[in-house]
Amino acid sequence: MIEQVNQAGYERSRDSLRDISPDLMRFAIEFGYGDVLSRPGLDIKLRQIATVAALTVLGDAQPQLKFHIQGALNVGCTRQEIIELITQMSVYAGFPKAINAMVVARDVFQELDVQGN
Amino acid sequence: MIEQVNQAGYERSRDSLRDISPDLMRFAIEFGYGDVLSRPGLDIKLRQIATVAALTVLGDAQPQLKFHIQGALNVGCTRQEIIELITQMSVYAGFPKAINAMVVARDVFQELDVQGN
Amino acid sequence: MIEQVNQAGYERSRDSLRDISPDLMRFAIEFGYGDVLSRPGLDIKLRQIATVAALTVLGDAQPQLKFHIQGALNVGCTRQEIIELITQMSVYAGFPKAINAMVVARDVFQELDVQGN
Amino acid sequence: MIEQVNQAGYERSRDSLRDISPDLMRFAIEFGYGDVLSRPGLDIKLRQIATVAALTVLGDAQPQLKFHIQGALNVGCTRQEIIELITQMSVYAGFPKAINAMVVARDVFQELDVQGN
Amino acid sequence: MIEQVNQAGYERSRDSLRDISPDLMRFAIEFGYGDVLSRPGLDIKLRQIATVAALTVLGDAQPQLKFHIQGALNVGCTRQEIIELITQMSVYAGFPKAINAMVVARDVFQELDVQGN
Amino acid sequence: MIEQVNQAGYERSRDSLRDISPDLMRFAIEFGYGDVLSRPGLDIKLRQIATVAALTVLGDAQPQLKFHIQGALNVGCTRQEIIELITQMSVYAGFPKAINAMVVARDVFQELDVQGN
Repeated sequence: MIEQVNQAGYERSRDSLRDISPDLMRFAIEFGYGDVLSRPGLDIKLRQIATVAALTVLGDAQPQLKFHIQGALNVGCTRQEIIELITQMSVYAGFPKAINAMVVARDVFQELDVQGN
Repeated sequence: MIEQVNQAGYERSRDSLRDISPDLMRFAIEFGYGDVLSRPGLDIKLRQIATVAALTVLGDAQPQLKFHIQGALNVGCTRQEIIELITQMSVYAGFPKAINAMVVARDVFQELDVQGN
Repeated sequence: MIEQVNQAGYERSRDSLRDISPDLMRFAIEFGYGDVLSRPGLDIKLRQIATVAALTVLGDAQPQLKFHIQGALNVGCTRQEIIELITQMSVYAGFPKAINAMVVARDVFQELDVQGN
Repeated sequence: MIEQVNQAGYERSRDSLRDISPDLMRFAIEFGYGDVLSRPGLDIKLRQIATVAALTVLGDAQPQLKFHIQGALNVGCTRQEIIELITQMSVYAGFPKAINAMVVARDVFQELDVQGN
Repeated sequence: MIEQVNQAGYERSRDSLRDISPDLMRFAIEFGYGDVLSRPGLDIKLRQIATVAALTVLGDAQPQLKFHIQGALNVGCTRQEIIELITQMSVYAGFPKAINAMVVARDVFQELDVQGN
Repeated sequence: MIEQVNQAGYERSRDSLRDISPDLMRFAIEFGYGDVLSRPGLDIKLRQIATVAALTVLGDAQPQLKFHIQGALNVGCTRQEIIELITQMSVYAGFPKAINAMVVARDVFQELDVQGN
C-alpha cells in the first residue's frame, strides 16, 4: 500500500528517524497503512482526500501534508481536485490554514514540474 | 446545493441564530455553499468526505460534525464509509478525536434508525 | 479590575474550584488580572475584544467565552460589536468556531434580557 | 495493562461503540496499550502523567481526560500530583484549558468520594 | 479597505499563489475584506487588534500574523499596543504561543526600522 | 530552578526578546518557574515529562519543545524516556505531531553529541 501512496517519501522519513526511533515510523506504517488504510470500505482515493483535508486543518503538519499531497496525486487525484479541496478547507478552518496549505501544494507541483512529471 | 446536503439541518441552524446574527449564517451559505462547494472540480461526495474529516480533526465542532455526517449520507456516502473515514482519522489526529467523532456518528445513525431511515 | 470585568462570574468560577484547587484560580487572577490586564498601554475595552477573539478561536473554552462576552459588555462594548467580532473570526478560524461562539453570545444576551438588563 | 489503568472505564467506552465500530476501540487498545504503553523504557506512572498533560492541552477530549485521571490514580499518582500537573499546564496552554481540566478532575474526585474510595 | 490595511503584503501573497489558485486569494479578499471587515459596527483598529489576537492563538499562521501586525500598525495601532496584546495572549493560550508571536512582532518592527519607518 | 532546567536556553530566549518585550519573558519566568514549577507536590522530572508531552501535542511550539527536551535531560530524564514519551503521544495526538517532535528530539541529541555531551 505504501508503494502506491508515496514510497520515496516514506523512505526519506523512515531514514531520517532510523537512528533515534525506528519504532515510531514502524508503528506509523504498521498501524496507519497496515491496520487502517488497507481496510476495505473506503477507496484509496477517498482516503487520500480525507488525509489532505485533515492535515490542512491540523496546520502544523507541513512535512506530512507535502507527503500526502504527493500521495494523493500518486493514487489518481488531479491537481485541480487538490486545489479545490484545500480551497474548501477555508470554510471550515479559516483562510490562514487554507493559504498555508496551498503554498505547500504549489511547492509540490513545482517540484514535479522541475522533475518533468 | 444546500438542499442536497442537509436542508433540514440548515434551517434549524439558521433559525437558532436568526435574531442575533442572520448575517453569519448567510455568509456561511453564500460563501461556503455558493462560492466554494458548488464549484466544479471536486464532486460533492468527495467534498462531504473532506468536510467530515476536517470536522473530526477540529474536534470542537460537534454540531457541525453532526450536520455533515447527515449531509454525507444524503449525498450518497454509506455508513460504512463514514465509519472507515473516522477510524482513519485516528492515525492523523489521535484516538480521542476519532472516538469522540464516532460517538457523534453513532448518534446520527441511531436517530435515523428511530425515524425509520 | 476584576470588579469592572465580571465580578459575579469570577466568584462563581472561584467557588466551583475552591475545594480542589484554590491556587489555580488565584494564579489566574494574580497573573491574568494583576500582572497582565491591569498594565497600561492597551485600554480595557481593546483587551476584552482581544480576549473574546482569542476564546472564539480556541473553540474549547466555552465557559471562559461566556464569562468574557459578559465582561466585554461590562466594560462598554456593545452587543453589535461582539456580533461583528465573532462574525469576523469566521475569516481566520472558519465558520464552525464562529457559529459556536455566536450561540454562546446569543445565550449571554438572552440571559441578560431575562434579567432585564 | 488496561486492567491496571482503568478496566471499568475501558469496558464502558468499548460497549458504547460496540455496535457501530468495534474496530476503532480494538485499535485503540491493541495499538495504544499493546504496542505503545506496554513498552519498557518509561514507567506506567510517568506514562499516565504524560497522558493527562496531553489531554489537558488537547482540550476537546474530556471523556478521555476523565478516563485517564482515574487511570493515573489507579497506577499510583496522588490527587495532589494531578492537581499540580493540571495547574502547570496553564503555563504552556493558558488558563482556560487548565481550569476546564481541573473541573474534570474535581468531578472524578467527587465521584470517588461518593463511592467511598 | 485592503489599501488601508496592508496593500504591499497583500500583493505579495496574491502573486505567490497566482499560478496555482487565484480563486483562494480572491475569496480571502472578497469575503474577508469585502463582506466582513468592511462592515460598520466595529472600527478598523478594533478589527486589527482582534485579528492579531486570533492569529497569535492559532499559532501556526505566522505569515498571516506578520501581515496583520503590519496591518495593525497601518491603521493606527502603536507598537506598544501590539506588544501588550501579544503579552495578554499568554493568559489565554500559554507562553509558547505568546513568545513565538512576539518574535514575529520583533521581526516586523526590525524590518520597519531598517526601512526607516 | 531555571538553572537546573535549562539556564543557557533561557538566556538565549530572554536576550532575543530583551529589546521588544522584557516583561513577557519575565512573566514566563516569574509565573512559570517562580509560582508554578517550583511548587512542591510534583517532582521536577515528572514536571519536565509533562511539559514535553504538552509541547508535543501543541505542535506549533518547536523552540519551546527543543528547550524542554534539553531541560528534561538536564533534570535526569534519559534519551530513551524522551523517545518513549514522544512515541506515546502518537496515540493521543496522531502520528504527525509525534513524528515532528521526534525530529526535534533527534536534533537536540545530535547537537549534544557534537558537543561531546
